[in-house]
Amino acid sequence: MFEIIPIKGGINAVQGFYADGVAAGLKAPLANGEPSLDVAFLYSQDLVIPFVLFTQNRFEAAPITHFKTYLANKPTNFVLINTKNANAMTGKRGLQDVCEILEALKHTFSFVQNPIMSSTGVIGQYLPKEKIIASFAHFKPFERREDAHLRAANAIRTTDKFIKEIAIKVQLDSGESFTIGAMAKGAGMIQPSLATMLCFITTDAQVPAEQGQAILQECAQASFNAISVDGDTSTNDSVFLFANGRSKAYHAEAFKEALSMVMHKLALDILRDGEGSSKVVAFEVRGAKDKAQAMRAAKALSNSLLVKTALFGGDPNWGRIASTIGASGVDSVQEQLCIAFDDVVVFDKGEICFDEAQEARAADIMKKDSFKITCDLGVGDAQYVAYGCDLGYEYVKINADYRS
Amino acid sequence: MFEIIPIKGGINAVQGFYADGVAAGLKAPLANGEPSLDVAFLYSQDLVIPFVLFTQNRFEAAPITHFKTYLANKPTNFVLINTKNANAMTGKRGLQDVCEILEALKHTFSFVQNPIMSSTGVIGQYLPKEKIIASFAHFKPFERREDAHLRAANAIRTTDKFIKEIAIKVQLDSGESFTIGAMAKGAGMIQPSLATMLCFITTDAQVPAEQGQAILQECAQASFNAISVDGDTSTNDSVFLFANGRSKAYHAEAFKEALSMVMHKLALDILRDGEGSSKVVAFEVRGAKDKAQAMRAAKALSNSLLVKTALFGGDPNWGRIASTIGASGVDSVQEQLCIAFDDVVVFDKGEICFDEAQEARAADIMKKDSFKITCDLGVGDAQYVAYGCDLGYEYVKINADYRS
Repeated sequence: MFEIIPIKGGINAVQGFYADGVAAGLKAPLANGEPSLDVAFLYSQDLVIPFVLFTQNRFEAAPITHFKTYLANKPTNFVLINTKNANAMTGKRGLQDVCEILEALKHTFSFVQNPIMSSTGVIGQYLPKEKIIASFAHFKPFERREDAHLRAANAIRTTDKFIKEIAIKVQLDSGESFTIGAMAKGAGMIQPSLATMLCFITTDAQVPAEQGQAILQECAQASFNAISVDGDTSTNDSVFLFANGRSKAYHAEAFKEALSMVMHKLALDILRDGEGSSKVVAFEVRGAKDKAQAMRAAKALSNSLLVKTALFGGDPNWGRIASTIGASGVDSVQEQLCIAFDDVVVFDKGEICFDEAQEARAADIMKKDSFKITCDLGVGDAQYVAYGCDLGYEYVKINADYRS
Repeated sequence: MFEIIPIKGGINAVQGFYADGVAAGLKAPLANGEPSLDVAFLYSQDLVIPFVLFTQNRFEAAPITHFKTYLANKPTNFVLINTKNANAMTGKRGLQDVCEILEALKHTFSFVQNPIMSSTGVIGQYLPKEKIIASFAHFKPFERREDAHLRAANAIRTTDKFIKEIAIKVQLDSGESFTIGAMAKGAGMIQPSLATMLCFITTDAQVPAEQGQAILQECAQASFNAISVDGDTSTNDSVFLFANGRSKAYHAEAFKEALSMVMHKLALDILRDGEGSSKVVAFEVRGAKDKAQAMRAAKALSNSLLVKTALFGGDPNWGRIASTIGASGVDSVQEQLCIAFDDVVVFDKGEICFDEAQEARAADIMKKDSFKITCDLGVGDAQYVAYGCDLGYEYVKINADYRS
């Protein structure tokens, strides 16, 4: 049917798009004295109406309010992204700052139409407007530097340890092909009040305007919506999908699978880079009454402090897992419940199967970087996989540290 | 109207009740070689139908299933309590164990009628039945030892650092009076899978049968239901209120206020003894649209990992507080929101008031053992106070440690 092939170039692998990062002096210089990249742009040769997903947080950041108020369903060719300051809880002044910055951008680059701003960083501080505007002098949207995608992915980081990007080519049986590129920044709220997740996706697939939003939403359910570092929802979470149609190619199933793969990869990268996390765990809830219940139970597990600390300690503490399922309030009875660590079943329909040998096997599994905990509720057919990480001293250290 | 006077004697301060604790060998001996108290009983000279509250966890422990199945609305004169083993996730065998133990109890003490069992400890292990039954030989329900209430409150601890009990006398203007005594064990899930909270309350007030349950529920809303150490709901949480009417005295308002005080005191004790917690924080949400929303926002704050770690670090990070309110989904807008640490306002209806002086004052407040964080949503009249604690290295240490 189709083949998915990894390619180079990150978000810039897609024809018609070019992203780069610059240093605006928002972040402190690196240890070696070099300036830190902290502002990025994404330029599109075509005018494109992006498909978007935004945070459910009631106190959405100013750039999100700006987009919803002025830019929804409008074609754009430019995105401006800054790190270090989320421009959240900044009220009318925050919104005014976005307007002024984007006016200055249009003044600098006359070709820019309906530019979008996207921010991440500390909540509750006003934007350093002048620094951001001054950085436009370093934007070179018409260059084609080979490492620009790395600089862009680097510039949108807050304190992510590594950059997160991917590019793939989808080869259809018809001979046609399209590409998808993407970059993201992580869920690591490493400095207090840092906002969470930004993701920018480009593609030359000819995605029908009426399908893109639904596909993006569906893919997010099993990727970004399935991961949790600490159960908090930031004020700035945003996913943008830009499809310029230049390949003239499209195949609904192939596109959905490819986009899903891209988002899943970035989501797990974000989790792996979570604050001090040392392992990534898949919580698979099966046999639930319906999808909503499967999701509720799986997310309860990935967010439980008691489960997360047990993961950190390498303790196959299935009692906490059972208790968390029970506390989540989903339909379930002990007599139908099965719990397993990878292939090691520890509780089987009301029977405890946790002798010393089983416990040792389960403890071995928990030493791995990644593994699966399966809970079969046995009351229906629905399933959902949530992804979580452990919580250790490092998380406390990172999050307890005073800002400054 | 009435006066509330602290008195001695804990749960045994109330005429007609007698509790004591014994060592059954469930817990390891103390460091000095003395046996640990780990089984308690509460004997009532009268047959009393208790008012009860149980966990909402779907996987309620076997003793709770036993109560609901066989004892609801039946008069009893005996409660048997064990620690170290929760008898949860133990299926039919767990229920059978409760039946056998209580049969043995009735066989030992012929006066015992409809005895209740209550357990706390590790989830997912079968009860050491023989040890518990053997301990009945040490029960002396007709003695009146002065320190028995301390032994009982001691015996129901899991790894609570201190015992939790209280006794008060309520003097009515009419000249009549009644007393309330209580003991509880804590929310410290210090060993993995330890179940959470047990509370036993005695009173000689003549509580009308049709009022007791509603009053107990109402008082729990502002006490046990308002505290959170880690947001987990155990399989064993139980509150029992025994009213024998011996004082012949009752005054609805006085009783409610007194019971509320008793439960509030024990709830804060539990929080103070929470796993490695160093401070108790009241999260007061005001100006909410309705009570449910006020509660939802307040509990979101008390359960937020980011807020809890900021409390630990002494960081007056109001951006995390705002973000958590926003993520909770309650009706709120930035332009109406106010946030304060005790009397230091840091965010006032869309305006950031957080200069260096304010930040220093807020940081000073956060050094205290207990303080209040107030969020006025400004969209209604409802309010709720949730109580939480910080999360530091000690919590991770306690919960990551392997069982054994």
